Amino acid sequence: MSRQRAGLGTNQEAVRRHNLGTLLRHVHRAGHISRAELTSMMGLNRSTIAGLVAELESLGVTERALPVGARQGAGRPSAGVALADNGPYVIAVDLGVDRAAVARVGLGGVVQQRTEAPIDGGGGEAWQVGASVAALIRGVVEGAPAAAPLVGIGVSVPGLVRRSDGLIRLAPNLEWHDVSFGSIVLAALGLDIPVSIANDADLGALAEHQRGAGVGIDDLIYVSGNVGVGAGVITGGHRLQGAGGYAGELGHLRFNPQGRPCHCGNLGCWETEVGAHAIAEAIHCPADKVAQLGEVLGGFDKPTRELRATGTALGHGLASIVNAFNPRLVVLGGYFRSLFMLVGAEVNAGLADRALPAPLESVTLALPGLGEDSVLLGAAEIAFEPLFVDPVAALGNALVDVRSRLAG
Amino acid sequence: MSRQRAGLGTNQEAVRRHNLGTLLRHVHRAGHISRAELTSMMGLNRSTIAGLVAELESLGVTERALPVGARQGAGRPSAGVALADNGPYVIAVDLGVDRAAVARVGLGGVVQQRTEAPIDGGGGEAWQVGASVAALIRGVVEGAPAAAPLVGIGVSVPGLVRRSDGLIRLAPNLEWHDVSFGSIVLAALGLDIPVSIANDADLGALAEHQRGAGVGIDDLIYVSGNVGVGAGVITGGHRLQGAGGYAGELGHLRFNPQGRPCHCGNLGCWETEVGAHAIAEAIHCPADKVAQLGEVLGGFDKPTRELRATGTALGHGLASIVNAFNPRLVVLGGYFRSLFMLVGAEVNAGLADRALPAPLESVTLALPGLGEDSVLLGAAEIAFEPLFVDPVAALGNALVDVRSRLAG
Repeated sequence: MSRQRAGLGTNQEAVRRHNLGTLLRHVHRAGHISRAELTSMMGLNRSTIAGLVAELESLGVTERALPVGARQGAGRPSAGVALADNGPYVIAVDLGVDRAAVARVGLGGVVQQRTEAPIDGGGGEAWQVGASVAALIRGVVEGAPAAAPLVGIGVSVPGLVRRSDGLIRLAPNLEWHDVSFGSIVLAALGLDIPVSIANDADLGALAEHQRGAGVGIDDLIYVSGNVGVGAGVITGGHRLQGAGGYAGELGHLRFNPQGRPCHCGNLGCWETEVGAHAIAEAIHCPADKVAQLGEVLGGFDKPTRELRATGTALGHGLASIVNAFNPRLVVLGGYFRSLFMLVGAEVNAGLADRALPAPLESVTLALPGLGEDSVLLGAAEIAFEPLFVDPVAALGNALVDVRSRLAG
Repeated sequence: MSRQRAGLGTNQEAVRRHNLGTLLRHVHRAGHISRAELTSMMGLNRSTIAGLVAELESLGVTERALPVGARQGAGRPSAGVALADNGPYVIAVDLGVDRAAVARVGLGGVVQQRTEAPIDGGGGEAWQVGASVAALIRGVVEGAPAAAPLVGIGVSVPGLVRRSDGLIRLAPNLEWHDVSFGSIVLAALGLDIPVSIANDADLGALAEHQRGAGVGIDDLIYVSGNVGVGAGVITGGHRLQGAGGYAGELGHLRFNPQGRPCHCGNLGCWETEVGAHAIAEAIHCPADKVAQLGEVLGGFDKPTRELRATGTALGHGLASIVNAFNPRLVVLGGYFRSLFMLVGAEVNAGLADRALPAPLESVTLALPGLGEDSVLLGAAEIAFEPLFVDPVAALGNALVDVRSRLAG
């Protein structure tokens, strides 16, 4: 912080940093935006916007760009703001049950480098998985420009994550209880950097709302098949988190009390009918392929009778969800993406058969706009979040020349 | 509006009115509050607060009061602000299936007068019910001071209400489809005044959050037994409404697909096990008493085996709700209030048996803090809402000397 800036009133400086973060959030969402648009979106005057843009440029985060929409505007076109090359980046980790995907992601949600590898999830100790993930992180960090600052790490987990501190309370298909995975990964890397952890479906919902199928839609649910079944809910434009951060465990809605035992101890949770194990059994998929169910389903040319029945059960469960949450959009992620491509008619019919007419009439089922990357890009979003709250502080805490630190 | 005020910039006047409404909302919630507290809560300086308070006094909404907490404070005690006698009021209507309760409610949620009467809900035409409700409204308005302004009418309905315009899309136990009940009541009264309509459980949640068992708790659910079963959800301090306003239809969560037919067309919705008709049958309550199930249950000294089983089924359904929403508090309203007093142990055991441990550990089941009046006071809240958005405009639209208008 310059002496001149430190001389400003504390409150005035806090407002300025807040505005700086908000402006950067707009650029991050849009990718390329004009100063005139920023002036209008933020309700600040042109000289204030110019000052904020100049500060982001001096921080190496944005750069001057060609005017946006210069051909359409009357009068002098407004200068554009674009994201800088070699700007800040984050590491996004999508931790699955048998494999992890890791990416280096820049502002604007740009995947700069991506890798994935099997992990020994089912039964492997958390520290072993942490070491595997750390190795993947090293791989993508090595490709980063030395000058680019690493802001933080975002991790998606198929389980219940405590909002207050990111503790993984339960990841049933990894067989983890009360695991502080952030500390494990940082220890394996030998780095001290912010790590944010959240539930996979919550992150899918966040990313689909921000840049996927749900842009501009403020009531949406991302239902994820990722061995287990979970959901992320956006309501009124905000994440539904619940008191502790555990909201959205829709795989454990009661579905068929005469049904099969669920790992949670109950009989007939929805997950026992549309979870990966149930579907794998129905289509005679070998047990060691359960975690790749999406790919297995992608290999089907046309639906079998069993898959059609599963599609109907998916629709019936979605009816409860539509009655409970009245979403405008339900995005079907994970292996539900492949399933919906095969038996979309059955899913829609099952939903229509069971939902109340009023919430049914305004809901649409859709594939993820971000394909298989919703959850990974959601993990990037939570890692970037400190940068939009206070860019000066977040860049102060960021690491540059990470490769040499890792090597040492 | 005075000429002087009209001379202010439009934006400045809008900010002033917004602040005036926010200050009034604080007084409404607290009932009696000091200027110093208002200064601190609103982040405005003392002279601005003094000006706003003076304006509310001149509008007849608040009055000067003895200092609050004068004995504890060091230094000169801060002047108090209290709600004026003869200030603005609303009419709250709690429309049940076989009776309606109507109250005149002042700021601070004070019930000034209250009446209720049977209505011919099940099968009665909406215009007949509207005429009965209008007669009840006349009764409570007649007791109002002539100078007190009537701000609006708030109506609670056991059904699905479209948020955009208050249309009752479906009130199953009234057998109503697409009824514009607000217009019907206004026509019967011969008045032109704002009418706000919402779902009963949503209003119960609102009132319990504002002044009942859920004060200070930002993640709560009000589950209402009112012949049918519904819920109102507060998440992160805000009402969960969904895309159209229909969220919270938890009575139609799938519960037992081998169970009984539900009026919605499905088999085995939760409502078919814990709805009033199911409970009445289990305890051999005559069909014409179903709508008074709460009173019938209140007559039991101790639970029967059938009631204990119902308590377990209530707990099992609440487990799905706790898994889905992760609330801190679940308030049991309507006839669930009487049921919970009888078989609370079974309800809690049913919940504990089926909910996931992480969301279970922080949730509490509770009786409504507002007794039987949660929904009625919630209806008053939505009727007051315009007054907290812009008091000057709302009082400009309010009616004084309503009695003489009704007589004419």
